[in-house]
Amino acid sequence: MILLKGITLDGRCIDMLIAEGRIARIGPEGACTTWELAGDVEMMDCRGKVAIPGFVNMHTHAGMALMRGIGEDVVFADWIRKIWEVEKHIDEEFVYWSTKVACMEMIRTGTTTFNDQYWHFTAGHRAAADTGIRVATGFDIMDQGNPEEAAREQERCTRWYEEEGHKWTDGSIWQLAFHAIYSVSEPMMLWAADFARSHDLGLHIHLCETRKEVEDCKAAHGGLTPVEYLDRLGILGPRLIAAHTLWVSENDIRLLAEAGVHCVHNINSNAKISSGYRFLYDEMRDAGINVCLGTDGCASSNNLDMLEVMKTSALFQKAWRGNPRAMPLDELLRMATVNGAKALRLDTGRLEEGAVADINIIDTDNSFFLSPGPFLANLVYSAHSDCIDSVICNGRFVMRHREIEGERETLAQARKLLTKIQ
Amino acid sequence: MILLKGITLDGRCIDMLIAEGRIARIGPEGACTTWELAGDVEMMDCRGKVAIPGFVNMHTHAGMALMRGIGEDVVFADWIRKIWEVEKHIDEEFVYWSTKVACMEMIRTGTTTFNDQYWHFTAGHRAAADTGIRVATGFDIMDQGNPEEAAREQERCTRWYEEEGHKWTDGSIWQLAFHAIYSVSEPMMLWAADFARSHDLGLHIHLCETRKEVEDCKAAHGGLTPVEYLDRLGILGPRLIAAHTLWVSENDIRLLAEAGVHCVHNINSNAKISSGYRFLYDEMRDAGINVCLGTDGCASSNNLDMLEVMKTSALFQKAWRGNPRAMPLDELLRMATVNGAKALRLDTGRLEEGAVADINIIDTDNSFFLSPGPFLANLVYSAHSDCIDSVICNGRFVMRHREIEGERETLAQARKLLTKIQ
Repeated sequence: MILLKGITLDGRCIDMLIAEGRIARIGPEGACTTWELAGDVEMMDCRGKVAIPGFVNMHTHAGMALMRGIGEDVVFADWIRKIWEVEKHIDEEFVYWSTKVACMEMIRTGTTTFNDQYWHFTAGHRAAADTGIRVATGFDIMDQGNPEEAAREQERCTRWYEEEGHKWTDGSIWQLAFHAIYSVSEPMMLWAADFARSHDLGLHIHLCETRKEVEDCKAAHGGLTPVEYLDRLGILGPRLIAAHTLWVSENDIRLLAEAGVHCVHNINSNAKISSGYRFLYDEMRDAGINVCLGTDGCASSNNLDMLEVMKTSALFQKAWRGNPRAMPLDELLRMATVNGAKALRLDTGRLEEGAVADINIIDTDNSFFLSPGPFLANLVYSAHSDCIDSVICNGRFVMRHREIEGERETLAQARKLLTKIQ
Repeated sequence: MILLKGITLDGRCIDMLIAEGRIARIGPEGACTTWELAGDVEMMDCRGKVAIPGFVNMHTHAGMALMRGIGEDVVFADWIRKIWEVEKHIDEEFVYWSTKVACMEMIRTGTTTFNDQYWHFTAGHRAAADTGIRVATGFDIMDQGNPEEAAREQERCTRWYEEEGHKWTDGSIWQLAFHAIYSVSEPMMLWAADFARSHDLGLHIHLCETRKEVEDCKAAHGGLTPVEYLDRLGILGPRLIAAHTLWVSENDIRLLAEAGVHCVHNINSNAKISSGYRFLYDEMRDAGINVCLGTDGCASSNNLDMLEVMKTSALFQKAWRGNPRAMPLDELLRMATVNGAKALRLDTGRLEEGAVADINIIDTDNSFFLSPGPFLANLVYSAHSDCIDSVICNGRFVMRHREIEGERETLAQARKLLTKIQ
């Protein structure tokens, strides 16, 4: 059990008890003295600190954490060539340690759940489980139109799901991924959608990331946009998590909304590799789409900091729309927390009795919060992630006062492995 | 004297001696054992750390540090009303402590020189001097077209310059500021330009920040843009430091370049209050303009973090130009350091023997630098300012291993003062 004494929640100073992975009790400050507490209780004095939900990073490739900076200030074609060159040398061990570094960086920046897509996903899952945060990941389909590869992937996916996937007991989520409509054959997309449906799994894809993807799709499929094409295939639906959705039409938004698709905005990646920036947030929100935030992988957007992504998202929206009211702070926080939880069907992202206890404890004793403005403005626009003092995931501390267990050893091990790809 | 042992500079491990405010000597690692060192030497073991120049924040209003968050997610008219309401209650004491908080935040984020513009500038200067960093500041003219106010300002400016300004001995720079062409009368702008010329001072202004400013100027001055208008008045020249220059024409860029005007990009402020984002960096650089970076004041852009500004600037350039090669890392670093030094006529912003010693010592022992990519990519795109371990300004430590002298007391004092404006 954990007792957070005197922490501020929604402007009120409270006591919060965490037990069996959940928020067991919330009461006014001092109330805890009247609570009957059985067993070991770890008490943290949280006076002057503020609780917010742990962030849910809804699109990343954590296994790429050790590849950041490989291609800087270069065009996409040169960048992807470098990535592929490096990926020839990676194996399960590399993905484990790279994901473990990513998890520690995510903890340090307040993320308690991440929606991943990468090779050797079982190694990625082990890394998350070993650091104590939650991953949604699973088999990643990318047959590149090769029927033999498709058959192999179907066999492996089925086997891995049976052998391991549905047995994960650490709170992580097995889901299916296919890369994108341009890297996966039509039969394979249909197979994946069917597999996801029959096993009740989420399906994580890249969609409408670049203008070229849309143009190529229209040329190949009688003028259909990627969203219309997936609609025709019957793949749209509430289990679909679509990353990017940057180049979408009015009709696309209608289709995504009607089907209940969850959309993930990744501004840092989109801006940095110049895919675009005019993400239609207002239009999607107004249509009823559940919009989430993600960082994308470190090879394209270099870090996994959701607080930074929140700020950049808002700056871009306010700038290109010429409207300083665009993407207000309360919506921004929901996009980074409870909207992601909703997409992954998790009972978290909210700090209420009964919810899964994923909590960031914010230290406000610094210049960034010394202001007459609201807490959220200070958190998003002024502070950086180093104001995150402690992090709880699944009811357990994964960072206490900026200390993460095993971090030094992980960095040292990763440093050794880096020589493999240099 | 300070001896930085085993620090990395431009990829080489070196020893660096700092004496009398300047970089006295640079030699290969270990060379310091052969140097004859007279007097007290403070040695810092810098193995694994990297030296870069201190940042030069070329446009801010440090006295607004305690006003951040006052108007969030609101349009400009509502925002400025709130600011003016608050500014009724500020006095010299408020500006001193607010600027002191700003200075501590700037030190924490690696800024060693800031180009300021605010009321009660002598209090601002004292705050900078007391924390050990360098400010360029001075009388701020804004007569709002009122001849009586203009006369008062001329008298005060002259008196203050004679009594105090030219006697500053802490390395700070007395300069003149006028707010903008729409808030200062033509005779007053001419007077300020003449005063700056005859006393050899810099002149710091806002220019072409909003589309409205350009349109209003054209309507009032026979179709002349603000730049063309200042050119006609003979005010353009190498002593002019123009903040924003966001809405400029091809002819404006030619005029600014020919006159040697220094331009300051403030993307976080421009994006957040929706002034615009299509800053013509490539065009200005190609025309030969010295382009610098600034944060603007905390009331509009919420923090004073130059590293964050570097990243946001690059993301916006790459995004709106659709070119991932836009604003490359080496240029970005120069914009944040030596270009600002050049505008202020300071012999700093470069780490070479003889230069003024303004140095950021970067700690790379964390996940953000664990990568096969170049140091600058990790610094700008992956890390945050909390990787700045120690800061030297004018040859003296202003932060050692994240500790700043007097920071707790300053925050406590500022907290008390905040009640004045709440």
